[in-house]
Amino acid sequence: MTTHTVKSYDEELTRLHNTLVQMGGMAESQLDHAIKAIVRRDPGLAATIIKEDVKVDRLDHEVDAMTTKLLALRQPMAQDLRTIIGAVKISVDLERMADYAANIARRAITLTQSAPVKPAFAIPRMARLVQNMIKDVLDAFIARDIDKAMLVWNADEEVDEMYTSLFRELLTYMIEDPRSITSCTHLLFVAKNLERIGDHATNIAETIYFMVSGKRLLEERPRGPTKEEFDMTDIVQKTSGQT
Amino acid sequence: MTTHTVKSYDEELTRLHNTLVQMGGMAESQLDHAIKAIVRRDPGLAATIIKEDVKVDRLDHEVDAMTTKLLALRQPMAQDLRTIIGAVKISVDLERMADYAANIARRAITLTQSAPVKPAFAIPRMARLVQNMIKDVLDAFIARDIDKAMLVWNADEEVDEMYTSLFRELLTYMIEDPRSITSCTHLLFVAKNLERIGDHATNIAETIYFMVSGKRLLEERPRGPTKEEFDMTDIVQKTSGQT
Repeated sequence: MTTHTVKSYDEELTRLHNTLVQMGGMAESQLDHAIKAIVRRDPGLAATIIKEDVKVDRLDHEVDAMTTKLLALRQPMAQDLRTIIGAVKISVDLERMADYAANIARRAITLTQSAPVKPAFAIPRMARLVQNMIKDVLDAFIARDIDKAMLVWNADEEVDEMYTSLFRELLTYMIEDPRSITSCTHLLFVAKNLERIGDHATNIAETIYFMVSGKRLLEERPRGPTKEEFDMTDIVQKTSGQT
Repeated sequence: MTTHTVKSYDEELTRLHNTLVQMGGMAESQLDHAIKAIVRRDPGLAATIIKEDVKVDRLDHEVDAMTTKLLALRQPMAQDLRTIIGAVKISVDLERMADYAANIARRAITLTQSAPVKPAFAIPRMARLVQNMIKDVLDAFIARDIDKAMLVWNADEEVDEMYTSLFRELLTYMIEDPRSITSCTHLLFVAKNLERIGDHATNIAETIYFMVSGKRLLEERPRGPTKEEFDMTDIVQKTSGQT
């Protein structure tokens, strides 16, 4: 039996799809391990995650090559064209998610250098929300399911709220116990990384919406910090109380 | 004289190019204003930046529409195809840069609610480096200049170093004066936003390299925190000293 080196258009689209699903699975598992590395204070596990980030980068480059080739040779139209443009964007989002997971792993290593701090316990709770978003958005991508994508899009608000509450908790903790400042600062960035991963899941949900419907979501979801994060009058007063 | 509603392919490519240059100019000016808002403690200026972020988002959507149309109707090949795929990516990077500028503006507003802290003076210095990267990468994009793009790509290291030094300065300051924790935390995120803007300029430099040469940069530039940022043994010891 001979192997065909020139694959059919459908096979190429399927390969593109599968590569994205594979990247998604990797991002999901990298994040899961990064959170475990924080909870178990396990620098060895964290080091593995950092080392494996390059695999996701490699798949991102593969997606780039596949989409360029598909656009050049197949001249795709309508939904196929949207699928390929969508793939370019989703690949960037997944690669960034894995990047953030590697960042969390780097923080996990540093966190083992100081005594454990209480607010670390809130991290896995926030991570679970974000992990569910990743899982759901990958399901939505596989099934091309707009409704499921919209659920993810809406879930981001909850992540933002949890981030805000964690942010305030960490600040309060630092003020009460300045010895915890270094650890709490790293946890602040871990929380911020989780919030950003949630943003990328939201981006993917928007891309799925566009891929399937050909329309763009008209509502704007503000990315980045929430209004509440900046309203710290009470914490500021607490701080001033120490004067 | 009649106006032609069907534009020529070249005109469409030029329009795409100009829209990206316009987005770049906006991102540059949004960041410039955000830093001014921090230095002058000017919440009014900051509010304007936040309001204007939507303009960059709108241009990003325009680029999406233009590239989709170009790919569907013109079936571009070789360098044109790379230019269009590159435009999709550069547009995302520029939109994120403006997003980060808006985040900095939000922090600028909160910072006016507490007394000024000394490390705020280091922010404009770091910002200047990042602003130069944006300016240079836009010049490189306009001139399709690979050498200039590579200069930007290499400059990111300096930004990372400055970020690390600012990070340590802010942590030390917080430990010495816990009243400054809230302000310093916001400044930490401002510094992180600047560092991320530098990463996006680096991404654009990589895209320019790909657009012009058709090749991918083989070296990997690790995005995200530097190794040094995590080596805080001295600061940790300082913290423990307070026990």
